[in-house]
Amino acid sequence: MENVFKTDILTKVRKQKPLVHHITNYVTVNDCANAVLALGAAPVMADEIEEVGDIVSISSALVINIGTLNQRTSQSMLAAGKRANELGIPAVLDPVGAGASRLRTETAERLIKEIKFAVIRGNISEIKMLGGTAAQTKGVDAAAEDAAGDIQSHKAMAERIARELGCVIAITGATDIISDGTKTYLIQNGHPMMAQITGTGCMCTSLIASCCGVTRDYLAATVTAVTAMGLAGEKGYARMKPEAIGNATYRNCIIDAIYGLNEESLYEGGRLLG
Amino acid sequence: MENVFKTDILTKVRKQKPLVHHITNYVTVNDCANAVLALGAAPVMADEIEEVGDIVSISSALVINIGTLNQRTSQSMLAAGKRANELGIPAVLDPVGAGASRLRTETAERLIKEIKFAVIRGNISEIKMLGGTAAQTKGVDAAAEDAAGDIQSHKAMAERIARELGCVIAITGATDIISDGTKTYLIQNGHPMMAQITGTGCMCTSLIASCCGVTRDYLAATVTAVTAMGLAGEKGYARMKPEAIGNATYRNCIIDAIYGLNEESLYEGGRLLG
Amino acid sequence: MENVFKTDILTKVRKQKPLVHHITNYVTVNDCANAVLALGAAPVMADEIEEVGDIVSISSALVINIGTLNQRTSQSMLAAGKRANELGIPAVLDPVGAGASRLRTETAERLIKEIKFAVIRGNISEIKMLGGTAAQTKGVDAAAEDAAGDIQSHKAMAERIARELGCVIAITGATDIISDGTKTYLIQNGHPMMAQITGTGCMCTSLIASCCGVTRDYLAATVTAVTAMGLAGEKGYARMKPEAIGNATYRNCIIDAIYGLNEESLYEGGRLLG
Repeated sequence: MENVFKTDILTKVRKQKPLVHHITNYVTVNDCANAVLALGAAPVMADEIEEVGDIVSISSALVINIGTLNQRTSQSMLAAGKRANELGIPAVLDPVGAGASRLRTETAERLIKEIKFAVIRGNISEIKMLGGTAAQTKGVDAAAEDAAGDIQSHKAMAERIARELGCVIAITGATDIISDGTKTYLIQNGHPMMAQITGTGCMCTSLIASCCGVTRDYLAATVTAVTAMGLAGEKGYARMKPEAIGNATYRNCIIDAIYGLNEESLYEGGRLLG
Repeated sequence: MENVFKTDILTKVRKQKPLVHHITNYVTVNDCANAVLALGAAPVMADEIEEVGDIVSISSALVINIGTLNQRTSQSMLAAGKRANELGIPAVLDPVGAGASRLRTETAERLIKEIKFAVIRGNISEIKMLGGTAAQTKGVDAAAEDAAGDIQSHKAMAERIARELGCVIAITGATDIISDGTKTYLIQNGHPMMAQITGTGCMCTSLIASCCGVTRDYLAATVTAVTAMGLAGEKGYARMKPEAIGNATYRNCIIDAIYGLNEESLYEGGRLLG
Repeated sequence: MENVFKTDILTKVRKQKPLVHHITNYVTVNDCANAVLALGAAPVMADEIEEVGDIVSISSALVINIGTLNQRTSQSMLAAGKRANELGIPAVLDPVGAGASRLRTETAERLIKEIKFAVIRGNISEIKMLGGTAAQTKGVDAAAEDAAGDIQSHKAMAERIARELGCVIAITGATDIISDGTKTYLIQNGHPMMAQITGTGCMCTSLIASCCGVTRDYLAATVTAVTAMGLAGEKGYARMKPEAIGNATYRNCIIDAIYGLNEESLYEGGRLLG
């Protein structure tokens, strides 16, 4: 089994400190900024259409996260994504809640149609929706019936969508599935309590973009970032004292654990099935 | 004295994980999301008028919090509230800063006129303003002269407004007053340091909506949620080490304490006067 | 060397609890609110043009932070600033990312042209840009080439801009430079890890406004606030256990440390060069 962690992506992030432009939601934006800083990259948030072109042009990667989309920011997302494409800057999509409203589904579809993404990360319900399969979503969480599906069929779906869109697809959940359509990895890091914090998905997307900011190998970048997030979920949980467990502390412990990661901890702790 | 906690509202929240749609401010939104998750419910934030109808229709409760209202989101609040009313989904209002600006007062009044709320929660200045009594507000905090008022007159005012609006009124402060116009409870949980964190009021409102998402007894839901918040304020304070007291840690400890609550701790710790 | 801390600004903040109106970004707004509360002041966030006039008129200071500016809030910033000027309420500008986009540079320049600020705080790249010197910015951080510049030339620039604009200029970084054009202070508090948290600059600006809310001596207010922020960075770092260092915990420890400051700790810990 090939070990994708032999790449030095985390080390490159810390040396190059890639600027990661975010157009994202106002719920988890602070956590995304601190997670990006914890990994070693530099976040910049800007959503005004008159400036997104300028900001993306000085950035190494772009995050488009539709968590609290509106008509104004949707236009900025389209403009920023197109500019990123022109400049060859990797764009990463987080289709938060696709399926939960017609607007989210249509916006995600339009973004995918008009922008070439390097990576799309979502939960199983969101990715199913993008893949044209009827999916259930419960707000911004994956529906239980979707999550309970067969891992092999999810894998096949990820591969199909990755080929159709020509990008890396990351389905995160109990087992993460990452595929570029040719090669697929399953990752089994993480902790169930991550679902009880807002923003673990968003932070994961921001880490993916941070890693895409230092390499053209977006598959390896995504595997590295998703493993980093899962491992931080495990290490963050272990940091909590049994008598002081709670989701606010857990959130901080996860970001702290990202801060404390290094290539060696990824290499040793990553549970990757090639 | 009847003990309203014999209802199993918290247990129901944890089993049913009601989806709670928020149109809220960008200051405390992350804390509200994590507080809702800590209680066991599921938050979704969406404020675009084109999608609020869809989102509210899959939700079990709606929070309208005017903390950072603007012309765009005010329209979304009205649309979401009306849709919630059509569908019989409980709507909870937090009239943050009513009285601090003409816009806030008028927006709160318009929301109350056009939407039937299950519960309205505010500090004494905000509720006085809604009740047509001249009130002082100091930004988003209750004015000292209002807070110093006589508890019996506040109780009478809560009862009058509750009857007039046909909803539960919750005035939170050193002593919380909760009334549906017929029955009134006073709650004496909490800690003075809660006033030194932003968002304890907003989080309380979000907990109320979470509880309203699992029962039609909105009075019991509100009493449960307000007691939960106050008790978390006490337990969170106790979690801090004397040498490490500060409002950022306190915020995390309160959310963690919500995460750690159960029916028994509510039953034992709630200081409720019927 | 005169000790500016003999003023009792921190004590006044805690007694008077000045209301500090913020029009600020949605990334660090919660940290700013909690930092203001930690210092002893009261934050209020309001960015709708229909209410900013009302809110500023009940406030003791105004923060304008362009971190996530847009066309709507830019208009609110102008309106609020002008109203603050009419009422003699101190306005403090944080030109986040000036230089990173044409929009940010032009907006900052327009704000400075149309509003008389009491204080402008930024990193060296942002202040250079405002001073008409070609600067590099890397998103919202100072560029390495700017930061590496000679402290004496930065001091001269701060003094020149302060005289030109008739306001206090605060350039924060490894050594903070604060000048009203006549008198200049250098401050050497802080910790390098502060750069790995989002929002330390924004929080510093909010503390400056909090202090400006209790005195007409804006130079002393700025020196007090910048020292408080740097000292909290040191004390916050010392609060972390060596085995649990991370930027999320550090953020909380800094805000907690602001909460724990007093005149004596400022007096003893401030490393001020007059």
